[in-house]
Amino acid sequence: MTTPSVIDLLGVLAYGELTSFERTTQGAALAPTLADKVTLAAVAAREYANFERLCGHLQANGVDPLEAMQPFVKPLNDFHANLEARNWLEGLMKSYVGDGIAADFYREISMYLDVETTNLVIDVLSDTTLADFALEQVKAAIAQDPKIAGRLALWGRRMMGEMISQATVVAGSRPALQELFLGSVNAAELAGLVNKLTVAHARRMDQIGLAS
Amino acid sequence: MTTPSVIDLLGVLAYGELTSFERTTQGAALAPTLADKVTLAAVAAREYANFERLCGHLQANGVDPLEAMQPFVKPLNDFHANLEARNWLEGLMKSYVGDGIAADFYREISMYLDVETTNLVIDVLSDTTLADFALEQVKAAIAQDPKIAGRLALWGRRMMGEMISQATVVAGSRPALQELFLGSVNAAELAGLVNKLTVAHARRMDQIGLAS
Repeated sequence: MTTPSVIDLLGVLAYGELTSFERTTQGAALAPTLADKVTLAAVAAREYANFERLCGHLQANGVDPLEAMQPFVKPLNDFHANLEARNWLEGLMKSYVGDGIAADFYREISMYLDVETTNLVIDVLSDTTLADFALEQVKAAIAQDPKIAGRLALWGRRMMGEMISQATVVAGSRPALQELFLGSVNAAELAGLVNKLTVAHARRMDQIGLAS
Repeated sequence: MTTPSVIDLLGVLAYGELTSFERTTQGAALAPTLADKVTLAAVAAREYANFERLCGHLQANGVDPLEAMQPFVKPLNDFHANLEARNWLEGLMKSYVGDGIAADFYREISMYLDVETTNLVIDVLSDTTLADFALEQVKAAIAQDPKIAGRLALWGRRMMGEMISQATVVAGSRPALQELFLGSVNAAELAGLVNKLTVAHARRMDQIGLAS
């Protein structure tokens, strides 16, 4: 099914995977060891495969992937420009926290679409290698130097704030995405979604040993 | 066959593909249009697939890819640190000229190894998408602003120089690679190789419209 909502969701997801692929590869370039570099490069390659799969799905439904992605290029680029990681740990935190929130959000809203789209979205977002890797590395770094925890906690909170503000801007500019909420989702469900995302974010921060 | 020469050649090639994957993805992140970004991301994904294939071949022969790559990490990182592209066109030139010279070199020396290795190396180096893309973009940029040709020609010459100096350092530190030449290759063949590389480089520069 290629309703405008589905096209918008797959478009933003596809561009999201493409930029994740770029960021994970930048992480690989900064990795302290060859083994870490190889781990991150493998994650990046899977993100590219997800991107290709989403584009393939759009194409199979007669939609040009470039057109579907285009509306989300500027908002996502702006989001990342506002939230540039300054070092290896901030980059890992960004993957862990930022990708985590985004994945929760996309999974939740895909539930209001057809089953095929829901399954595709869930499948594309199922890889936790990067989150596990980031969790392990950041926890180890905090254990070694507890002083860095405060700064990283702040970084995590800033990310949550930026994502909410950016999501509002994107949804506001895309009637099909807005309709997905205003049409299918009532106020109670919307409050429930925000609550779910906040709880999941707090649990992730807790797991990595930081205050949310 | 996993002679020390084969391990060294596949190790340096694997690390080379891994770093090409990183650089091409950096290019994708700088791409002026979404279509260019998608083209470069696809090239990067194939470079990663080449890296995986070379690692798989080493592993199938009982060799740890990380160990095979390790001796080449510092020399290749140094080479790239000395030759950091400062913009989109320099990055494309680096792929076109640098990868071109490297591919010619690896193809030539693989001829002195077993057929299976030769075929693997030739196959891994056969993708010309990036070279074609870079050629087209750089030519178009020069046509639009001929003043940039001088600076890009200088950049191309500098690359040839850096590659020769770096290849000498690498070969000098790896007895197996040195033996490949001193053992299998006589002085006339070595002179022939250098000549072939220089001619191919000049042809590439000519094709892109720059003095070599």
